[in-house]
Amino acid sequence: METKSVNHFQTHVLLIDCPDQQGLVHKITGVLYHHHLNILRNDEFVERTTGHFYMRTEFVGPLNAEKVIYGLRGILPDEANIRLESVHPKRVVILATKEHHCLSDLLVRNMYKDLLMDVKAVIANREHLRPLVEKFDIPFIYLPHEGLSRQEHESELLKAIAPFHPEFLVLAKYMRILTADFISHFPNRIINIHHSFLPAFVGANPYKQAYERGVKIIGATAHFVNENLDEGPIIMQDVIHVDHSKTAADMARAGRDVEKIVLARALKLVFEDRVFVRNNKTVIFE
Amino acid sequence: METKSVNHFQTHVLLIDCPDQQGLVHKITGVLYHHHLNILRNDEFVERTTGHFYMRTEFVGPLNAEKVIYGLRGILPDEANIRLESVHPKRVVILATKEHHCLSDLLVRNMYKDLLMDVKAVIANREHLRPLVEKFDIPFIYLPHEGLSRQEHESELLKAIAPFHPEFLVLAKYMRILTADFISHFPNRIINIHHSFLPAFVGANPYKQAYERGVKIIGATAHFVNENLDEGPIIMQDVIHVDHSKTAADMARAGRDVEKIVLARALKLVFEDRVFVRNNKTVIFE
Amino acid sequence: METKSVNHFQTHVLLIDCPDQQGLVHKITGVLYHHHLNILRNDEFVERTTGHFYMRTEFVGPLNAEKVIYGLRGILPDEANIRLESVHPKRVVILATKEHHCLSDLLVRNMYKDLLMDVKAVIANREHLRPLVEKFDIPFIYLPHEGLSRQEHESELLKAIAPFHPEFLVLAKYMRILTADFISHFPNRIINIHHSFLPAFVGANPYKQAYERGVKIIGATAHFVNENLDEGPIIMQDVIHVDHSKTAADMARAGRDVEKIVLARALKLVFEDRVFVRNNKTVIFE
Amino acid sequence: METKSVNHFQTHVLLIDCPDQQGLVHKITGVLYHHHLNILRNDEFVERTTGHFYMRTEFVGPLNAEKVIYGLRGILPDEANIRLESVHPKRVVILATKEHHCLSDLLVRNMYKDLLMDVKAVIANREHLRPLVEKFDIPFIYLPHEGLSRQEHESELLKAIAPFHPEFLVLAKYMRILTADFISHFPNRIINIHHSFLPAFVGANPYKQAYERGVKIIGATAHFVNENLDEGPIIMQDVIHVDHSKTAADMARAGRDVEKIVLARALKLVFEDRVFVRNNKTVIFE
Repeated sequence: METKSVNHFQTHVLLIDCPDQQGLVHKITGVLYHHHLNILRNDEFVERTTGHFYMRTEFVGPLNAEKVIYGLRGILPDEANIRLESVHPKRVVILATKEHHCLSDLLVRNMYKDLLMDVKAVIANREHLRPLVEKFDIPFIYLPHEGLSRQEHESELLKAIAPFHPEFLVLAKYMRILTADFISHFPNRIINIHHSFLPAFVGANPYKQAYERGVKIIGATAHFVNENLDEGPIIMQDVIHVDHSKTAADMARAGRDVEKIVLARALKLVFEDRVFVRNNKTVIFE
Repeated sequence: METKSVNHFQTHVLLIDCPDQQGLVHKITGVLYHHHLNILRNDEFVERTTGHFYMRTEFVGPLNAEKVIYGLRGILPDEANIRLESVHPKRVVILATKEHHCLSDLLVRNMYKDLLMDVKAVIANREHLRPLVEKFDIPFIYLPHEGLSRQEHESELLKAIAPFHPEFLVLAKYMRILTADFISHFPNRIINIHHSFLPAFVGANPYKQAYERGVKIIGATAHFVNENLDEGPIIMQDVIHVDHSKTAADMARAGRDVEKIVLARALKLVFEDRVFVRNNKTVIFE
Repeated sequence: METKSVNHFQTHVLLIDCPDQQGLVHKITGVLYHHHLNILRNDEFVERTTGHFYMRTEFVGPLNAEKVIYGLRGILPDEANIRLESVHPKRVVILATKEHHCLSDLLVRNMYKDLLMDVKAVIANREHLRPLVEKFDIPFIYLPHEGLSRQEHESELLKAIAPFHPEFLVLAKYMRILTADFISHFPNRIINIHHSFLPAFVGANPYKQAYERGVKIIGATAHFVNENLDEGPIIMQDVIHVDHSKTAADMARAGRDVEKIVLARALKLVFEDRVFVRNNKTVIFE
Repeated sequence: METKSVNHFQTHVLLIDCPDQQGLVHKITGVLYHHHLNILRNDEFVERTTGHFYMRTEFVGPLNAEKVIYGLRGILPDEANIRLESVHPKRVVILATKEHHCLSDLLVRNMYKDLLMDVKAVIANREHLRPLVEKFDIPFIYLPHEGLSRQEHESELLKAIAPFHPEFLVLAKYMRILTADFISHFPNRIINIHHSFLPAFVGANPYKQAYERGVKIIGATAHFVNENLDEGPIIMQDVIHVDHSKTAADMARAGRDVEKIVLARALKLVFEDRVFVRNNKTVIFE
């Protein structure tokens, strides 16, 4: 349960998931009604295969977060997960390597506040992207991995990230594999863009794999990062059609536009608190 | 308000729309809870521009329809529209002319119960489709329009339709324009498939128009029929990409697959009671 | 090299592939020009990674096939593959099991000659589809596999197929794996529809796999069958978006429309002689 | 006929269109073969409705442009249009107003040479985009239209554009209508992005129109600008699905990503000399 930075009279989002039981919607909305909170939008979903209940509620009104959560605890099953979020730009640190297309798209969106996002820094294991990042007056931190063990490099990374207190890390074509230990510092808080429609072509060089297999569709997948490479919960996917005339390099080029749009759309969903993660899957109220 | 054929212990769908006010979800779900009805799925939507509230609820339990509606009337604004539907195959009459692709797709789906639909008859103003329809043991009624005024033909049509008591008419490439008078017998109960992404290319020969304009996308639109040609509420649209090499005839050929799939998907939504119609637009809980 | 059933003055298709060399287009079109054959459409492609040349030419005129091929042999590299096809409905035998959606779509298209296809028979290892097939006056052959070894069943299958002399076999949701031996009788002449976007979810139950992985896209793949399950050359793929609310059964239902359309579009390409197969990939001139 | 800046041994593109006649491909490739030019890729298309022939050829070799064109003139019909282009970054001036999304996408692509484009200047009738443009070290020219007649403003515009000698003007959400007189200075050399799938919703506020019509698809169209507003030859279109929950503002927001990708993909085609314009339509060899 989290209650960070909740103010009165602004829009809030309440996310509840728990085993389903009769009357949950009535009871939950009753708590909000009792506290004079006005529901702007309400979405529920009961997963038939597991009998699990998910509900997301946007509301406004004079919020006393502690009392509302106390009221909710009183009517919900003990196992219920409750998140109460104020609508605010999420503090973000971006990790990148050499490719610019996702990063540049995010930097422009950040400049124009197109996403509920406040980019605090870009950290890269190569120098290539410094000129781009510095155009946008965002700190660029160069952390080369050469000569360091994976653990040493990640330890440096954690130290570099710490002062920015990010709510989310975004891997914008960061071409290093992160260890389970690193990931455990940011559970369901690291979003990656993978350049294939997972689970096809996990791992390295998906466009080369796609070219060799002769596929007629290529795609991109935005997902939360967990300890298994390319196996975290999927947030968003999209594809484009290709034909025999495309080399692996052509596919990579064409795929970039899909990657940047899929990543941006996934971040929109995450930063607007529309995404539940459970059993390595996402439930998303768009 | 409608209450037709509601039985106990089967799944029902409740559709409510009314001006929004605080606590509606809580109050409505309270009525269902009070009557021991178990919500399987609940969707609400408040249209921000008009402040209008829409809610669709699937539930099971020992339904006393009169009492539930009485209870709902007690807590809802006077202007509320309430529909209570049992989940059942909708009685359908299909109108067609010469083209087979939408009709054949629906006849196959009807045979295999792929849609919540029970096709009672096919009526056509040409004879071409009789062999197809008779394969599926569905009555085929030939009602030529030659030598008849529009009013006379529609009067025949109404007489032919009447014994089947259809809940919906489906225009599966029926190439005659219906009068406002005819349509008034089936308000929001006639679904048409138009072979363009409306509002582009209203009227006749949309593929010819598309070819002449040199578009790179063609599409299809399923919509409710109202008194203005091709201007009724849109239910579903989809498109495919085309290029310069396609003639108008090629586009028509390629478009047929989009037409039949769009029509079938629209009918799925309508027959599962997922569609509200208001202000010439649809609100659809998919 | 094949020259079957070529007549004068109808449309023919010439398919040539060979190692690239300078002047090939000029030389090939020269042979056609010399024989007073009029090119309707010409497509070439040189695969940059392998330096292999592909050319497809549609032409009309007073064809003397032997002389044209002799002329082409004279100017082409020895390794050249030459196919000369008359445009004609391809003789097809369909194999199926229980699911109707691809089969019914093909039977309707066959009835209305929507594809360059002449379905000679449907063979199934279950009885379910007999009523459907018999509606369309196509022979339905029931060949149960129970109590037979795979070899025995395939031997029966070959015997049942033989009298129809099919140019292509179409697997319309045929749920048996074919042996390399069986496939060797029909090299690049068996087309299958697989219910995922290969190479994701090879093997059984792809929709169940997709549901468990939590993907946001599902798809279908039409491919030539070779000795490795689900690894043959891909002809056509398409996808649809899904969300968390879809169970594996919902995905299967939604996926059926993609499957039938992808299969039909793939067959259109194959039967119009638009597809080259080489190195387990297809080159397609659409 | 144009022969600008053609050098030896680089890649060139030859674009020919003329009334079709027998043997054209053979004769044209003969001229190239005779001059020892090696064809990398060749595409032809004969429009069946008009009998017009289009051919695009990429080749390398020791080009003597004058002799090749002299040779081609000798074998082609008098009405033939011949364009011979060297592959080079096209000189571009961008016109914009207030919205950043297309402009920023192009500026990033320009920085990284993702398109065959060399942006020389951005001219805007508002000041809003200056900070963005100046980040990329591109001249930003502010040309307000207030207090000027349309002719006066366009005259200023022509003067501002002149020193950059652009091969193309790109309207990246430039919200002023251009006169036929202005356009006549850049025939088929001005590319606009319109925020709807034309011909639906021509003119102002297409997203508002789309919202009011209740469409389920919105789109974007990149087209050459001619003297009729929104009626020029279409280069590229794409769409996204929307539902009832989207306001006109939501649609505008969602549509921006389609607009920027459609514009970039259209420019790729134009700048790689893949686009013919004839009879207000495009023929594109992708």
